[in-house]
Amino acid sequence: MAFSGKVLALSGGVGGAKLCRGLTAVLNAEQLTIAANTGDDFDYWDLRICPDLDSVMYALADLNDEERGWGLRDETWRTLIAMRRLGGDEWFQIGDQDLATHMLRTQLLRAGHSLSAATKQIAAGLGVTHTLLPMSEQTVATKVSTDQGWLDFQQYFVRDKCQPEVRGLRFEGADTAQLNPLLKNVLQDDELAAIVVCPSNPFVSIDPILSLPDCVGLLKEASAPVIAVSPIIAGRAVKGPAAKMMRELDMPATALAVAEYYGDLLDGYVLDESDVEYSDDIVAMGIKVCVAPTLMTDLPSKTSLAERVLSFAASWDG
Amino acid sequence: MAFSGKVLALSGGVGGAKLCRGLTAVLNAEQLTIAANTGDDFDYWDLRICPDLDSVMYALADLNDEERGWGLRDETWRTLIAMRRLGGDEWFQIGDQDLATHMLRTQLLRAGHSLSAATKQIAAGLGVTHTLLPMSEQTVATKVSTDQGWLDFQQYFVRDKCQPEVRGLRFEGADTAQLNPLLKNVLQDDELAAIVVCPSNPFVSIDPILSLPDCVGLLKEASAPVIAVSPIIAGRAVKGPAAKMMRELDMPATALAVAEYYGDLLDGYVLDESDVEYSDDIVAMGIKVCVAPTLMTDLPSKTSLAERVLSFAASWDG
Repeated sequence: MAFSGKVLALSGGVGGAKLCRGLTAVLNAEQLTIAANTGDDFDYWDLRICPDLDSVMYALADLNDEERGWGLRDETWRTLIAMRRLGGDEWFQIGDQDLATHMLRTQLLRAGHSLSAATKQIAAGLGVTHTLLPMSEQTVATKVSTDQGWLDFQQYFVRDKCQPEVRGLRFEGADTAQLNPLLKNVLQDDELAAIVVCPSNPFVSIDPILSLPDCVGLLKEASAPVIAVSPIIAGRAVKGPAAKMMRELDMPATALAVAEYYGDLLDGYVLDESDVEYSDDIVAMGIKVCVAPTLMTDLPSKTSLAERVLSFAASWDG
Repeated sequence: MAFSGKVLALSGGVGGAKLCRGLTAVLNAEQLTIAANTGDDFDYWDLRICPDLDSVMYALADLNDEERGWGLRDETWRTLIAMRRLGGDEWFQIGDQDLATHMLRTQLLRAGHSLSAATKQIAAGLGVTHTLLPMSEQTVATKVSTDQGWLDFQQYFVRDKCQPEVRGLRFEGADTAQLNPLLKNVLQDDELAAIVVCPSNPFVSIDPILSLPDCVGLLKEASAPVIAVSPIIAGRAVKGPAAKMMRELDMPATALAVAEYYGDLLDGYVLDESDVEYSDDIVAMGIKVCVAPTLMTDLPSKTSLAERVLSFAASWDG
């Protein structure tokens, strides 16, 4: 297919990264901008770790480990094992190749470069040609309120394996952070033809982006339709704690509940074939629906979903 | 053999580390303190690298790569290769396991620990039981005056492979740094029975230690004899630029010239069998001589040389 116009994708890590990979197969570098959540970012081993930026970057470079679901393919763990022997922190797993990403990023940030500039240099080094932006240059830290108290996101997600019961979330620093100006430019671009909310966790991947000042307003004012792809298929998240989190937050773990959660932010919603039953309810909310196979298991299925999303977006034209 | 009393060894990297390994085979943890040169230390990849401390530590843990002559055995280079792909610095080679050492040390230093404390934790993690101390807690940086101007030591040593012609050396910060107080305690210990100047490069490994305030005075006042082991065997350095440096500094590259260079600091000098011709000249300087096989190629030869040095030291008793 040939899609004309520009596309902005809002993405978290794994699920979002898959659709982003599909979008890069269909759109050229000038057409696509990906804005990734940085609420999961944290410091570890004195390094700045940006899990979602890295997941997207690695997926775009076809270097990601599909089986493990995070990090790089053909990874080794020599430094981690050596660190363990020395008694250093080891609860967060950093592979040897992945480590170079974190080290170079941290060097660049310490040298005064912006996170956007550091991301650009590292992505270019990996051969990524499409534009990948952090949602903000400033630090926003997702905090999870649980039955065990407030936890930093990575403590909840990695250290505690999403086992604590979630009661709420807050995005520390989001009120004073600014939306990445480069992202703001894209949102105000007249050629913008689609805004894709990737099938990422709404609470911890997309909400941090939406929580930034002016973001929701700019999304609503943008010339392009806002189209979300459901991260829930037949009541389950493909990966990650989205469905568990929904139940803990007193929502049904359904694709419908996600559409209701995003509410009037959305112009369109892409629903998996197995969830076609929710179509009418979503249409009744004033949101156009596209039903498609949304499970992405390989490059053809990623590309195919990207094409469906873009065809759907094209239906707003004229 | 059973040597009674305490021993202090002053050491640089490879050659010194070999004799230190021999000393740890003969002396228990309470008897031996090793003070390593930190003039070679530098920052790279935003990490604090202490090459001589690490060479000694790895040698003591039997984890050093004897063949390569530096770093850890069974090392891999995955992070370095990934860093190269990203366009980061790569002139200094850090292996994946070695990296954990530099990362943990840097973390500990940033958290406010002293270099002695960081060294102690890392050495303990590697199973080292003998005491290894940096010569100072403060930064001293060896600078090399060459036909190409002043160079940082690692630029000269690693990046430029010791090819520039050396005209002189200075130890930046040595005038305001302090001798490690823990090392000072050892020097003032009445039970100190031998001070061993390891077969390390006199100019870039031992001189930085000697350049620290009070160091030479304390060595001379110490109750124990100061015994150097020649780093030159039959006119050649076993490894490293010592012989080349001597010629460039207008000295003959001989074991005799090293003894003359140390001069009245020495009470005893251990000379290789192949250099027995210099014995009389050295004795004439008022320095006792011990002739021994000094080439250390395996643990037995390291242990054997350590035993010879300690027997020699014992000859000062009563």
